[in-house]
Amino acid sequence: MNNYIITFKPVNQKVSISEGSTLKDAIVKSGLDFDFPCGGIGKCGKCTVKVLSPKIETLQKETEHLSKNQIFAGIHLACITEIHSNMIVELNMRKNTDYNILQSSAEKKFTILPLLKKDFIQLNLPSLECQKSDLKRLREKLILKNPKYKDLEIGISVLRELPDKFRKADNKVTVIIDKSEILGIEKGNTCYKMFGIAFDIGTTTVVGYLMDLYTGKELAVSSSLNPQIKFGADVISRTNYANQNNDDLKLLQVTILKALNKLIDNLSQKANIKRNDIYALTVVGNTCMHHLFLGLTPRYVAAVPYVPAVSESIKLNASELKLNINPAGKVFVLPTIAGFVGADTAAVILSTDMDKSKDIKLAVDIGTNGEMVLGSSTKLVSCSTAAGPAFEGAQISSGMRGANGAIDHVYFDESMTYTVIGNEKPRGICGSGLLDIVAGFVKVGVVNKRGKLLSPDKFTNPAAKKYSNRIINYNNANAFLVVSESETAHGNPILITQKDITSLQLAKGAISTGIKILVEKLEITSHDIKEVLLAGAFGNYMNPHSACTIGLIPRELESKIKLVGNAAGSGAKLALLSQNEFERTNNIANKVTYIELGTQKHFNLEFARGMQF
Amino acid sequence: MNNYIITFKPVNQKVSISEGSTLKDAIVKSGLDFDFPCGGIGKCGKCTVKVLSPKIETLQKETEHLSKNQIFAGIHLACITEIHSNMIVELNMRKNTDYNILQSSAEKKFTILPLLKKDFIQLNLPSLECQKSDLKRLREKLILKNPKYKDLEIGISVLRELPDKFRKADNKVTVIIDKSEILGIEKGNTCYKMFGIAFDIGTTTVVGYLMDLYTGKELAVSSSLNPQIKFGADVISRTNYANQNNDDLKLLQVTILKALNKLIDNLSQKANIKRNDIYALTVVGNTCMHHLFLGLTPRYVAAVPYVPAVSESIKLNASELKLNINPAGKVFVLPTIAGFVGADTAAVILSTDMDKSKDIKLAVDIGTNGEMVLGSSTKLVSCSTAAGPAFEGAQISSGMRGANGAIDHVYFDESMTYTVIGNEKPRGICGSGLLDIVAGFVKVGVVNKRGKLLSPDKFTNPAAKKYSNRIINYNNANAFLVVSESETAHGNPILITQKDITSLQLAKGAISTGIKILVEKLEITSHDIKEVLLAGAFGNYMNPHSACTIGLIPRELESKIKLVGNAAGSGAKLALLSQNEFERTNNIANKVTYIELGTQKHFNLEFARGMQF
Repeated sequence: MNNYIITFKPVNQKVSISEGSTLKDAIVKSGLDFDFPCGGIGKCGKCTVKVLSPKIETLQKETEHLSKNQIFAGIHLACITEIHSNMIVELNMRKNTDYNILQSSAEKKFTILPLLKKDFIQLNLPSLECQKSDLKRLREKLILKNPKYKDLEIGISVLRELPDKFRKADNKVTVIIDKSEILGIEKGNTCYKMFGIAFDIGTTTVVGYLMDLYTGKELAVSSSLNPQIKFGADVISRTNYANQNNDDLKLLQVTILKALNKLIDNLSQKANIKRNDIYALTVVGNTCMHHLFLGLTPRYVAAVPYVPAVSESIKLNASELKLNINPAGKVFVLPTIAGFVGADTAAVILSTDMDKSKDIKLAVDIGTNGEMVLGSSTKLVSCSTAAGPAFEGAQISSGMRGANGAIDHVYFDESMTYTVIGNEKPRGICGSGLLDIVAGFVKVGVVNKRGKLLSPDKFTNPAAKKYSNRIINYNNANAFLVVSESETAHGNPILITQKDITSLQLAKGAISTGIKILVEKLEITSHDIKEVLLAGAFGNYMNPHSACTIGLIPRELESKIKLVGNAAGSGAKLALLSQNEFERTNNIANKVTYIELGTQKHFNLEFARGMQF
Repeated sequence: MNNYIITFKPVNQKVSISEGSTLKDAIVKSGLDFDFPCGGIGKCGKCTVKVLSPKIETLQKETEHLSKNQIFAGIHLACITEIHSNMIVELNMRKNTDYNILQSSAEKKFTILPLLKKDFIQLNLPSLECQKSDLKRLREKLILKNPKYKDLEIGISVLRELPDKFRKADNKVTVIIDKSEILGIEKGNTCYKMFGIAFDIGTTTVVGYLMDLYTGKELAVSSSLNPQIKFGADVISRTNYANQNNDDLKLLQVTILKALNKLIDNLSQKANIKRNDIYALTVVGNTCMHHLFLGLTPRYVAAVPYVPAVSESIKLNASELKLNINPAGKVFVLPTIAGFVGADTAAVILSTDMDKSKDIKLAVDIGTNGEMVLGSSTKLVSCSTAAGPAFEGAQISSGMRGANGAIDHVYFDESMTYTVIGNEKPRGICGSGLLDIVAGFVKVGVVNKRGKLLSPDKFTNPAAKKYSNRIINYNNANAFLVVSESETAHGNPILITQKDITSLQLAKGAISTGIKILVEKLEITSHDIKEVLLAGAFGNYMNPHSACTIGLIPRELESKIKLVGNAAGSGAKLALLSQNEFERTNNIANKVTYIELGTQKHFNLEFARGMQF
């Protein structure tokens, strides 16, 4: 069988390949960056190349994908074009291709250029006439790939591997690089094997998204509880634990790192890839989680004047944190905005493009804390409020997490109806259920404006009448019977007490006041807001109508509400797939003006007003 | 006692200081870079400052140092100017000062800008109105010092220290930085404490020079044998040992690192400074020592085609190598030129400025190997030859190192006289003594042109006659009795055998051939060479006249010989004191064309010729 030489322009890389192979085979052998989105089976029509010489015939299948102009210009599909002579072929390499990633709510266009990159290199052989060092031979080929690679640094451990690796690999190696550094060397062409994980570390939950850095596709998702929970359920108690001494801070760090290593294991098993082929991690989280992950003391974040150790983005070696991915792997941590507005919020802005938007948008991420950002490309302001534990189901008499047995949605129509997670007998009420119930109280008039649960004789709204028999005496105060003991899983009634309503009022007051102050700071009115983006698990689970009914979100904005899913996680994924997007997060963090609500003179007054329905 | 405010221009730094203090005290308190070369005792007249306000009287002592123009312009000596009011003072800071370092042969002017730098910073206090992160507060002050500090990186371990250190130091800290990185933070102003060591790692000897990076002064020198010697006396045997397996390579590395740690201890004791105040090390050595120091395999350096793993300069953390200096410390390794022309030669070129010279110069560094460089600013060529062990006293019948009891110089005048190191009874002959003896043989005609030790009846030169009775029969061949048994320390005669002469001829032939080929490569004649620089211990100890007599150095160059001391060590010191000089070594290494003598067609013929006297 004959061998032919295929020359790829504009890089002038030559490959020798046997007759009957496809141009795709030749491209793969060359190690050049070029994608076959459908895997090279002639389906997507994306692997277009220009055959400069010789002129070859267009196949029937190609005509399905190519325009007349393209056919006339000599464009062919690499995956189905066979080789029967020497050829000169022009390639549009990956940097010209745009990719989409799908979020739950929006499709976003960007160019894949992952934080780490692989390049296949065929080194020149050394000889007595050319005794260049191993590193010099590597550099001379890297510079041909990209002149910017001129100043790449290299660590001593990678350097120690060069001599033997080059010779064992017959001088054909894949180089792993990031923006500034040669991170590792692998034998042969491994450009196609390159994965990364985007981590969203929440106070309660940790989520990891396994991404193929070559195709940009999401391969698996896995989540777990944040095991630091045993040292404190919220940011403040966890900070107090870390403050005891250096070992306790270390313990908190090791605890989250172990959880991430478990997720790395899970994700690689799910997607059937090797941990060693994972090279990059991105991490977002609130400022406290961010500090604990990095082993930075959160002591000064939690105390006045709430100063983080660092806010800018950070790059470090995965091995420094003992994260079990490729030894050359890097961790990229997104920037934080302030002590209580973290990297997760920077990621929300990144994935929702609020910083590029002409329209003014409001993003709200509700958890134990509520973080809010308001603005447009001109200006962004943010704040954070302690929403309290009501939305997490904690400190509510019948409260529970959003797990099986939780009443998650409640409707006050002809009668009161509800749904239960897992379709079981109810055990309690989760945050979204509580929100619906209190919104129902407001709607039918079971509570007054100040949130007081009325005795039936005080009902003024006729709609309240049908709930009269649900008002019971509980610990010498009024309570509302949601489910009687005969219908619950545990045989105890499920109630809403006056205290529960007050808890929710505090949370609602904090968030609505935050929004109000942001609106003032931007010198607009709420009517100028074009979109309200609800981010995070709770934001996506709660009934927006209920949120507006109780005034958690200004009522006039109900029609502008948009659910954006885990926008923080989406931001972490974006940053992983695109150096540019990662770097943009620093601009975002610098651009956002943080408003410390505690220093606002009229905060207490507004807050008291905000608690009312 | 009153306190006064001293404002330093052009930086506008203010300092409050008590009445009667000197301007020197105020400058020291400010942390600004400014030198007091004589230590601030009014002796050197170098600490000139311009007092802008108020006008103050010139002291008698100042008139000894200042010109009339200076006095008229308001120049004063900071060290003796007392403070009795608020003052505005203009400082010329260090970057404007030129320093000299003295070598054994030449004084060289350059600007001190050490590889590591310290800056004293007073951070802005955080507040609820300004919640900037600790790192951001550091960066905003660093950028004021130097706009280039904008992109300084910072490692996670330094970051972890920021929050507590800032607060414990009352926000007054000294930052240790190199060109690209924030390396560490110290409490208060420690700018004046900053030391470095320049190491020259030879196959046989290791030398360390402790330098004050603030004043540029050498504080102490210490040397030791290279303890790797137990794994092989020369580069090849040591490489063979390292090649056995990875542990053996590691063992060789650990062995040299331990020796360096001992020197670090010695040097800091000698100069009475703390190891922790040493921040930077520079290292030079031949390519094999360079690789073993870094833990890089020398396997491919020692085998055809003699390829090093790396040739460019390297920066790494001292802690990575477990070198016991400040944890923030860095090691800067100078570049190598080829497999057998190392970082020591690059350092020789640096300290002798051959790469900047309009005149053509030849540098020769003779040890177990002889390295030579020839050329000027236009072009530099280099080569290396195995000089053999003759110059080290090894494999010579009565040979020994240059230690007490060694005949080091021999004169053939009226009679043969000699000197002995330590003025003891002689025990043997070291390299320089052997060179003198054989040069004497040539001069008086005891040997013929081919190096044969003649029987007295074959003497043709009348001058030889008086040595007739020293020609004795030894193992059935002629030998020359240098010292009879009655006069030696051990009661055995000290002889020169025919084999000894042949050993020297091999060494001399190798070096003279190397020089000849370099001259050819540069397309010049030896008469075009304006200076011959003899570097290294042996080169500075041997009698240049003897070297020319036997043709080790071309005879016509005798008057051009200049001893430059340990020029490699001087280069290492220069690189330590000046970023620019360190960076220049990479240009030097790239500029030098290495000539592999083995590939020169006429090498064998030239070598045979070169062995003749």
